[in-house]
Amino acid sequence: MLTLTTDFGLKDPYVGIMKGVIATINREVPIIDLTHQIPPQNILAGRFSLLNSIPYFPRGTIHLAVVDPGVGSERQGCAIQFSQGFLVGPNNGLFSGILAQFPPEKIVTLTNPKYWRTQEVSSTFHGRDIFAPVAAYLATGVPIENLGKEILKEELIDVSFPRPEIKQNTIIGYIQYIDYFGNLISNIPASRVYNKQWSVSIKNDNIESKNTYSESDPQELVAIIGSHGWIEIAMNQGNASEALSLNYGDVIKVNLF
Amino acid sequence: MLTLTTDFGLKDPYVGIMKGVIATINREVPIIDLTHQIPPQNILAGRFSLLNSIPYFPRGTIHLAVVDPGVGSERQGCAIQFSQGFLVGPNNGLFSGILAQFPPEKIVTLTNPKYWRTQEVSSTFHGRDIFAPVAAYLATGVPIENLGKEILKEELIDVSFPRPEIKQNTIIGYIQYIDYFGNLISNIPASRVYNKQWSVSIKNDNIESKNTYSESDPQELVAIIGSHGWIEIAMNQGNASEALSLNYGDVIKVNLF
Amino acid sequence: MLTLTTDFGLKDPYVGIMKGVIATINREVPIIDLTHQIPPQNILAGRFSLLNSIPYFPRGTIHLAVVDPGVGSERQGCAIQFSQGFLVGPNNGLFSGILAQFPPEKIVTLTNPKYWRTQEVSSTFHGRDIFAPVAAYLATGVPIENLGKEILKEELIDVSFPRPEIKQNTIIGYIQYIDYFGNLISNIPASRVYNKQWSVSIKNDNIESKNTYSESDPQELVAIIGSHGWIEIAMNQGNASEALSLNYGDVIKVNLF
Repeated sequence: MLTLTTDFGLKDPYVGIMKGVIATINREVPIIDLTHQIPPQNILAGRFSLLNSIPYFPRGTIHLAVVDPGVGSERQGCAIQFSQGFLVGPNNGLFSGILAQFPPEKIVTLTNPKYWRTQEVSSTFHGRDIFAPVAAYLATGVPIENLGKEILKEELIDVSFPRPEIKQNTIIGYIQYIDYFGNLISNIPASRVYNKQWSVSIKNDNIESKNTYSESDPQELVAIIGSHGWIEIAMNQGNASEALSLNYGDVIKVNLF
Repeated sequence: MLTLTTDFGLKDPYVGIMKGVIATINREVPIIDLTHQIPPQNILAGRFSLLNSIPYFPRGTIHLAVVDPGVGSERQGCAIQFSQGFLVGPNNGLFSGILAQFPPEKIVTLTNPKYWRTQEVSSTFHGRDIFAPVAAYLATGVPIENLGKEILKEELIDVSFPRPEIKQNTIIGYIQYIDYFGNLISNIPASRVYNKQWSVSIKNDNIESKNTYSESDPQELVAIIGSHGWIEIAMNQGNASEALSLNYGDVIKVNLF
Repeated sequence: MLTLTTDFGLKDPYVGIMKGVIATINREVPIIDLTHQIPPQNILAGRFSLLNSIPYFPRGTIHLAVVDPGVGSERQGCAIQFSQGFLVGPNNGLFSGILAQFPPEKIVTLTNPKYWRTQEVSSTFHGRDIFAPVAAYLATGVPIENLGKEILKEELIDVSFPRPEIKQNTIIGYIQYIDYFGNLISNIPASRVYNKQWSVSIKNDNIESKNTYSESDPQELVAIIGSHGWIEIAMNQGNASEALSLNYGDVIKVNLF
């Protein structure tokens, strides 16, 4: 099984082309789309999507991700073996979230053109010419060490946020993702507030915590434990990101009572 | 075979996560997306999409739908067996359209946590934790009665519009769906106007009926028999919903000559 | 294997319905989406998507495409056999790009209702009632000549742009596609500028050529050889189409040094 995550959108046939390349090498492997609407070149959003999706897939799944502002430059492509399966994509931090949870076992840079679609690689579409064929060959059982030169895990780019900082009765974290509904998802795990009373301060607003959306009124801001297990800020039937004018990386403070 | 209908959008990986949960339980079942762009929390739009799609699928197909404004509240989840296959989702009216055509044979509330992903169910993502695993187990042959307590069909929520009202030479109906192109789809079936001359009155406009879009001029409003078999109002190369400022539930009147 | 290309969007369940119709006839054939976000009724955009995608699919693939402003009028449906597989859709120019590369071997109009879903065909949704079932039957091995009356390749509609015109040190071409990122893709093949120095003139702007996006500054316009092998104009981290107010069919001039 193989998953795809990109910022290609669904307007152009780029994703379909990658699937054609995969099917030409391996007709049998089922392909599941995680999302193709990562905001363009937003490695942080891609990182979050992978981090939160991969644990729900069967072991052995190959996760192919292309959010690649550095395509055509010196950045390297990589394939990574870890306990849950394989990761394939640019070495630019995309995988730094999931690998903090499940450390890599073997990492290679994609230097062996035998497993590319062509030796004349496009400077803008490595998804088609390198990453898709490499993932398809992994799915046919090609050993990861055949794909290129092994590197150390210290050579993987890491773009993770600093861990949340705890000071007495406050926790300082960051907004690590903004979802389709405009919910602001922090990097503060729910385990920090279990069995506690808590609220959120953000800019000049103080936002009460609730158990579910349905306990709040329409257009009311609430702090809840989101489905991914992070503390998040939502607006019932509204868009919290727009209402608060907040963005990736902005600070969020949790108050414990 | 299994279909998915949600209001999750395609930006976030929620749909992909549900597919991962399904594949972890049942790797073989093919999954087809109906749509994930039901307007947020719009049960009426979800109801219409299911009503018009399910008849085109093979018997035995499992239709999983999550448009769920009441998630985390007291609303129940349900699984329904009917002549065309199975329905899985919240008991909030989503299935009331299709069940008016194909009555339910057996209905259960999803009370048996053995068939959930986890006993610690998220308060916001029952699609992942309850509905997806239940649908996957149904696809592996688990009998519906194992999933929970049987309930009566009277206990299913119904959100259908009143049937169209016929008075002499007019039929009063409702707009039950607005599609991607802005076409306004009523709940008046085409059978009411077969072999008759007819037009549509809506607010102060009178709109002539035509056989096809191509008989009208660009930007002209037309009343036609839509591909789903309902009377609808369209604007050739334009958006009827915006042009007429009409919305779900607004009244539409058909005049017969 | 079967691919789908439409302008139906992903909001409504039309694409899912076509997949249900296909699965009812042939449960085994894998279906890959190329795109369903061709701009409404934009045959040129559909033509470009097919032209650039089909070469990446295995031989024998059936490509089903529905961008069909003339649905319900006299325009004909067609099925085409060619070296790469099969094409199914309206005869309106959609396939004129790919067939310039891979000439058709056998062409039929879809006149045999035995391979339709129903004899009472909707006037607005031939995708569901004619094209999807025809493609599904092709996938089960029905010979193309069973589907209808054979026609000559001269009877296929052609909507291709004139070939680029070379005058001394300039090449005049056209914008044949605008992608999700706003990149302007011309119909001038990269082979015309290999091993040469070149720039692009468009309206009053002169745009330098670069090897990759990453050689340019943010918001800078660049002319590059795109991943599909055409000369294109892009804006690093921006939208060239909006910045230059250019559209389908507009003229682009390449200067050779």
